[in-house]
Amino acid sequence: MRTPTPTLQRVADAAGVHRSTASRALNAATAHLLSPAVAERIQEASRLLGYRRDVVAASLRTRRSLLVGVLVPDIANPVFGPILSGIEAVLAARGYSALIANALDPARQVAAAHDLIARRVEGMVLATAQRRDPALTACLDAGIPAVLVNRAEADGEAGPRACAVVSDDGLGMRMAVEHLVGLGHTAIGHIAGPANLSTGALRRQGFEAAMAAAGLRGPIVGAAAFTREAGLPAALDLLRRGVTAIVAANDLLALGAYQALAQRGLACPADVSVVGHNDMPLVDMVQPPLTTVRIRPCDMGREAATLLLGRIATPASAPVLQVIRPEFVRRGSTAARSSRPGPS
Amino acid sequence: MRTPTPTLQRVADAAGVHRSTASRALNAATAHLLSPAVAERIQEASRLLGYRRDVVAASLRTRRSLLVGVLVPDIANPVFGPILSGIEAVLAARGYSALIANALDPARQVAAAHDLIARRVEGMVLATAQRRDPALTACLDAGIPAVLVNRAEADGEAGPRACAVVSDDGLGMRMAVEHLVGLGHTAIGHIAGPANLSTGALRRQGFEAAMAAAGLRGPIVGAAAFTREAGLPAALDLLRRGVTAIVAANDLLALGAYQALAQRGLACPADVSVVGHNDMPLVDMVQPPLTTVRIRPCDMGREAATLLLGRIATPASAPVLQVIRPEFVRRGSTAARSSRPGPS
Repeated sequence: MRTPTPTLQRVADAAGVHRSTASRALNAATAHLLSPAVAERIQEASRLLGYRRDVVAASLRTRRSLLVGVLVPDIANPVFGPILSGIEAVLAARGYSALIANALDPARQVAAAHDLIARRVEGMVLATAQRRDPALTACLDAGIPAVLVNRAEADGEAGPRACAVVSDDGLGMRMAVEHLVGLGHTAIGHIAGPANLSTGALRRQGFEAAMAAAGLRGPIVGAAAFTREAGLPAALDLLRRGVTAIVAANDLLALGAYQALAQRGLACPADVSVVGHNDMPLVDMVQPPLTTVRIRPCDMGREAATLLLGRIATPASAPVLQVIRPEFVRRGSTAARSSRPGPS
Repeated sequence: MRTPTPTLQRVADAAGVHRSTASRALNAATAHLLSPAVAERIQEASRLLGYRRDVVAASLRTRRSLLVGVLVPDIANPVFGPILSGIEAVLAARGYSALIANALDPARQVAAAHDLIARRVEGMVLATAQRRDPALTACLDAGIPAVLVNRAEADGEAGPRACAVVSDDGLGMRMAVEHLVGLGHTAIGHIAGPANLSTGALRRQGFEAAMAAAGLRGPIVGAAAFTREAGLPAALDLLRRGVTAIVAANDLLALGAYQALAQRGLACPADVSVVGHNDMPLVDMVQPPLTTVRIRPCDMGREAATLLLGRIATPASAPVLQVIRPEFVRRGSTAARSSRPGPS
């Protein structure tokens, strides 16, 4: 014979607190509102009684799963950790949990989106966006609110299909180019990221616009991926074209440029200046410390989750694009243009 | 009036495939088994018909949620991304999804564990383990199989309470000490990690054992956290005690030691050698490139998820400790002991 299921009221009585206080202590979203001693006393009472909240039963009653799906292209990439931490913090504070799926290629992303929808997620955060994203199409078809983070879609004819939270790539590139122009550089090249990702396409556009505003045009070489390995040959190509400064579409591409300079026997920043993008962990410790554009991934995650919860509450509103202002971080990889002849 | 719910059979008919093939195409765990063209045709048919699998309804029938909870202490820390990617890959291939919660302090970890249990997770991976972990207690009380990853508990009197997958910290420390002894160092100090984490405690023990095996004893200074900031004062303390080599309990502590050397006007490795632990991204690009012990976080995540799924299938078996062999990576931060007088 089973013993009767312990109730929240019994936990509250055992701990000598009100039922609502007991409820708060047993919920990760609200436990911090109580003093640690009280929270621990209630958790201990709950443990001794073997009390278990049943979120699934509750969600069948309320028809709300309190689940949000999060789809990332590569969870091992250090940029996504802070984005996830921002998303998770906002969700947890509102009683939601994050179901996280990791899928690199578009067909698997679509299948993963279908899986999350089948789990009755109330909304979805997509960090995967291609320029026309099939996983977003899956969400829209299913009537699930979705917010893009870090990357956006290319706008269709009818305007954006979903909310997006991105770093201001145009501003970031303008900061980089204006910094180099201020140091006397005119032969400035760009290592562009993959053109099918908004970060690749928009930073390239931002570079071109910033150069045009300065009355300049510089060579652009596309990299197949946002990696050091792809940055090296792209930088060698730019060096052959005689640039004295390189603006890379992310930090890993910039570190590939460091390797290209070493191969060519050139010094950074004495011969060639390099600017990265993102300010990923440890780029302040490489030699020379990398000048870069700092994005705010944790803030992007927070904003995306906040926007999404708003859309879950009010599904009908028009999509918004939320742009997070980056910060320029000057370190040791940029210097005044050398009076020595260029590297070509 | 609602239109009748589209069935899997109708999707299969529309795409001209067998029902089981259609099922495969709509499941992230199995979509890759089909050719991309077939998978896309079925996904498109499913989209046009508005078909939605209902995992929740299915799990109520089968009493299996196909959910696994994953609890991490700091999802923004780059070491956890590869662990999560390994866990997610194994779970996805078996049709499971990962519910991820992020909580730094123990009281919130317990509350987060209760939340995940209330979601009817079938098992839990804990990357949070303290030496006696309250979140693990919560799982065990609820009868939920749990596996620890990256960190283990201190064994209680009755032996281990749960399976754990960790890097072989004793071997890693022996590799580091033997490398330095081979270079002629005898005054070797250790920056230890927090004693309440198994990584901190076991690496410290590993250092002491390896030194004893070489007939040596070296000073040990504890750092309050696994950060660069905590590594700096610990390294300054070791330098005052005249060490010519420092073994740090992780890479960030080692980079704090770099800063300590710079403050004291000492060169690495000419004056003092430094060894890190983990081989986190970019430590090959710092100056000098860091000699370190490479752990395999993605493999640890894979093994932890595999072990957990085994425990879900067969709950009764005794806990096992699975140790993943690290690899020693020699780079530029270690060199033969200088004939110059020591730094003290």
